[in-house]
Amino acid sequence: MKFYGYFRSSSAYRCRIAFNLKGVQPETVFVNLREGLQKSDDFRSLNPQGLVPALEVDGNVLSQSLAMIEWLDETNPAPPLLPGTAIERAHIRAFAQIIACEVHPLQNLRVLNYIKQNHGQDQAGADGWCQHWIAEGLAACEAIAAAQSHGGGFVFGDSPSLADICLAPQLFSADRFGLDTAPYGRLNEIRATCEAMPAFKDAHPSRQPDAI
Amino acid sequence: MKFYGYFRSSSAYRCRIAFNLKGVQPETVFVNLREGLQKSDDFRSLNPQGLVPALEVDGNVLSQSLAMIEWLDETNPAPPLLPGTAIERAHIRAFAQIIACEVHPLQNLRVLNYIKQNHGQDQAGADGWCQHWIAEGLAACEAIAAAQSHGGGFVFGDSPSLADICLAPQLFSADRFGLDTAPYGRLNEIRATCEAMPAFKDAHPSRQPDAI
Repeated sequence: MKFYGYFRSSSAYRCRIAFNLKGVQPETVFVNLREGLQKSDDFRSLNPQGLVPALEVDGNVLSQSLAMIEWLDETNPAPPLLPGTAIERAHIRAFAQIIACEVHPLQNLRVLNYIKQNHGQDQAGADGWCQHWIAEGLAACEAIAAAQSHGGGFVFGDSPSLADICLAPQLFSADRFGLDTAPYGRLNEIRATCEAMPAFKDAHPSRQPDAI
Repeated sequence: MKFYGYFRSSSAYRCRIAFNLKGVQPETVFVNLREGLQKSDDFRSLNPQGLVPALEVDGNVLSQSLAMIEWLDETNPAPPLLPGTAIERAHIRAFAQIIACEVHPLQNLRVLNYIKQNHGQDQAGADGWCQHWIAEGLAACEAIAAAQSHGGGFVFGDSPSLADICLAPQLFSADRFGLDTAPYGRLNEIRATCEAMPAFKDAHPSRQPDAI
């Protein structure tokens, strides 16, 4: 199994946490996004979309972090990343998708490049754009997380799920783009719980061999 | 079961197709996005994120179209929307997520409003923005779909999956934003197969009671 990632990619960060939680360690290939290597012919022949992360497994190339993590969860059921009933699983997936479908796509590199090149935005404009969308998404996540009454340390209970796997990298990105995360009290508590676990700690961008 | 949707919302359109394929008919509530009713206190008390679609079921409110469709598929297994092995399911989810996580978030109303208000874009600029991201995503989808050799009429075989459920509404949006879809030969063939099915036909925005 070969994992193509980049230290700072939020979606690669999600996958690293999931692999660590499952105790699965794929061989890792680092694709330098700042140098545009994800758009190289070599990488595109592997993943036509030219995005990391990607996972090569048994001659297949999987892409899209949530699809990869669901595959990992189906093939390595313990510990479950989508525990509970169908309704509980739907809540976990929805929380993950608020981040993966509503926030993260707006802050990624190709979008920031576009608004700089085509909308005349400078770095401050790009940061403001990211802050706006991250704040909107985190407000929804905070409302959901704060409404839970399970008493556990994670979004949906006392063990990390796909929700926490998406949340920790999103909070890292919030810091990176200069958003003040103080208003998200419950999310910060959950973050502290996550960061105390080796699976989350070892997946942090600053601890990857390609970190600069 | 109560479904909150809007005729033109791509993600509500996905859910309608899925309900039709499963033969499940929830009561439908129409939330007028152009009038901003999704931001009303009433609707936000139901779905804090203020987005449609949402699904009220057994006192729970589910949000995020893909999470809702996975819930529907888990609770109503026939016909399966994620058929096959874990690897095959990963490919279906990844295809759906190219649309749901890479394309659709960039073309939705709140983003178009933002670039008009904050980046000085007019309607032509907003359409150009949408066309750019839709073209990039559909090119990836076309490469994946054209590489399949199963001989069936849908993206991944001879029955519709979550991939087709996301594709048909995305092609509808491509038309709406003025993108020429002629380059996507295989996707157009799949679209024709889909549109011949009542489940897809009846879910079309133009056939909804709130269509204007």
